[in-house]
Amino acid sequence: MKLMLMAASLRQDSINKKLIQLSHEVLKKLQVSSEIKQFNDYEQPLYDGDVETSKGLPAGVQQFINDMNDFDGLVFSVPEYNFSMPGTFKNLIDWVSRGRPMPWMGKKILLLSASPAAAGGVRGLWQIRVPFEGCGAFVFPDMFTLANAFSAFDDKGHLTDKNLEDRLEGLLKQFASFSAVKF
Amino acid sequence: MKLMLMAASLRQDSINKKLIQLSHEVLKKLQVSSEIKQFNDYEQPLYDGDVETSKGLPAGVQQFINDMNDFDGLVFSVPEYNFSMPGTFKNLIDWVSRGRPMPWMGKKILLLSASPAAAGGVRGLWQIRVPFEGCGAFVFPDMFTLANAFSAFDDKGHLTDKNLEDRLEGLLKQFASFSAVKF
Amino acid sequence: MKLMLMAASLRQDSINKKLIQLSHEVLKKLQVSSEIKQFNDYEQPLYDGDVETSKGLPAGVQQFINDMNDFDGLVFSVPEYNFSMPGTFKNLIDWVSRGRPMPWMGKKILLLSASPAAAGGVRGLWQIRVPFEGCGAFVFPDMFTLANAFSAFDDKGHLTDKNLEDRLEGLLKQFASFSAVKF
Amino acid sequence: MKLMLMAASLRQDSINKKLIQLSHEVLKKLQVSSEIKQFNDYEQPLYDGDVETSKGLPAGVQQFINDMNDFDGLVFSVPEYNFSMPGTFKNLIDWVSRGRPMPWMGKKILLLSASPAAAGGVRGLWQIRVPFEGCGAFVFPDMFTLANAFSAFDDKGHLTDKNLEDRLEGLLKQFASFSAVKF
Repeated sequence: MKLMLMAASLRQDSINKKLIQLSHEVLKKLQVSSEIKQFNDYEQPLYDGDVETSKGLPAGVQQFINDMNDFDGLVFSVPEYNFSMPGTFKNLIDWVSRGRPMPWMGKKILLLSASPAAAGGVRGLWQIRVPFEGCGAFVFPDMFTLANAFSAFDDKGHLTDKNLEDRLEGLLKQFASFSAVKF
Repeated sequence: MKLMLMAASLRQDSINKKLIQLSHEVLKKLQVSSEIKQFNDYEQPLYDGDVETSKGLPAGVQQFINDMNDFDGLVFSVPEYNFSMPGTFKNLIDWVSRGRPMPWMGKKILLLSASPAAAGGVRGLWQIRVPFEGCGAFVFPDMFTLANAFSAFDDKGHLTDKNLEDRLEGLLKQFASFSAVKF
Repeated sequence: MKLMLMAASLRQDSINKKLIQLSHEVLKKLQVSSEIKQFNDYEQPLYDGDVETSKGLPAGVQQFINDMNDFDGLVFSVPEYNFSMPGTFKNLIDWVSRGRPMPWMGKKILLLSASPAAAGGVRGLWQIRVPFEGCGAFVFPDMFTLANAFSAFDDKGHLTDKNLEDRLEGLLKQFASFSAVKF
Repeated sequence: MKLMLMAASLRQDSINKKLIQLSHEVLKKLQVSSEIKQFNDYEQPLYDGDVETSKGLPAGVQQFINDMNDFDGLVFSVPEYNFSMPGTFKNLIDWVSRGRPMPWMGKKILLLSASPAAAGGVRGLWQIRVPFEGCGAFVFPDMFTLANAFSAFDDKGHLTDKNLEDRLEGLLKQFASFSAVKF
């Protein structure tokens, strides 16, 4: 059983990357195997049906599909852009959805979000469940949002709010169990 | 009073482009001035906060902002991708939202969608209202969805279902009145 | 120009009723006429198509329709129940939607929400826009959410966070202007 | 392994009740045990926090909780009211959510919808996923919507569109397997 972790942000110094890094540490502590992938490593043009027809799936998209197929569960930390999902990450979802058989079908997904604002990215996560579930993925009901994220981490990358980190740990543990089940 | 029309699709032979073309004809008949813009003409990279910090808004995005500021109302025909909005168009919304003052604030927007499926793109439209309204735009309550769009147009680009074209005409007329009001 | 104010809560000691009361005070200060209505005063059974067929609209629902038709704009403060709209208030929306002509059509609506939680009711508001807009109402793009509402009011019913009350005042002022426009 | 089936409509001659009846037949054919419950049998007042404080959960709500706890999976056929969920059914969700431990937590749910319209209730289903998932239920990713439902059934209660009934059968089979898994 192995989980893939990825922040859906291209920014180098992203708070969602920090949350993914923390999740990686927490999973290590829980003795759950996991690996971080970088959104930046999967080159993708804007989706264009004509490009797809003439050239097929871009290499970066195909690589992402191959990579995610190696894992039992996927953990994405997704920033909120304008009360909704990032266009960039939705563009990847759209490209991936053009693979056959549908690559998202049956995938187990856990959603996290870090946000500089007080509402913590919660609107974006509820919106991005829709394309994932529409494509047949099992998105874990519970999600994790980190509000006021610029001041939420200590020097070692842990959350200053210990209760919140406990909640993250509990959720990752639940999701690991869920990902281990075959159905 | 002048309306901007644009299909949120990059594909050359797009049914949303056909719906925009028809809307242009209908507005002409209604003696409402309108102009079609092409999504393809506004070059935009994937949104990346680091790129924004180092280089500011891309030229294509700035051009789009300048263009839309010349109009009293915006009509977008938006395909549904995976039960939601296209990542490509959301990427433009995201880039545009980084302009100051917020370019979407107070804009009047009418949403159309053409879809090859029976549900007609209605799920995507309800999702894309959210970022627009979150950014302060007045999205017209009523929307227009064209189901089974591959067989919906006749040779001259009109809808074979005359009642449906009447509904489109009525909606465009209402939206033109709404766009003419200053508030 | 006159606004109707109502909290979508049946509870006597509701924080949404406090937010409506505060909005009433703020509007008075802005010299905008407004009147508070009580959700409890409009008796409504659960919606049942058979009851509608045999008895028509319940008296409480008809009274609500008559009352709201006397105003230029409607301000609702709506609690979040289970990440979404309250079933109780949606039940009123459903009953009202059975009147003819559609009573919600063209209504101008501003949405507020008070919540004991940190996310402030924002998920519920985004969900409840949908039936209102689907029924043809103009829901103001901007909304107001009061997080941690149990400790947000001072003894006189004002917000302890002065900036937040200023934002409420600014929003009510904008909505009053919007409601004054005929279109 | 046993499934509970219920239409979220109070109307006697409801198309959602017909769809539930058909699902019951299909499950019989698949040799999956299932039982139909009637929404009308669970008496529920409008949710009121004061009533809850003074009297606790209404008997009808407690009965519903007891009943659903006897099953491995829940199949609801939910009409669309005003582009969203029925207030009546959301009112039941709200009441049930006040039980402890949270009765919806971990429940497996399949959503169906029958609608007289061409879009088939799809908007309502996507909205009602939110409170269920927010309360911790596993809502099956795929859903079933029956458009133009007034003319969709033959004399014996089967769908005239055989392919559509095959899809329903396939989905019920998948959901039964999913409900049989313990996690």
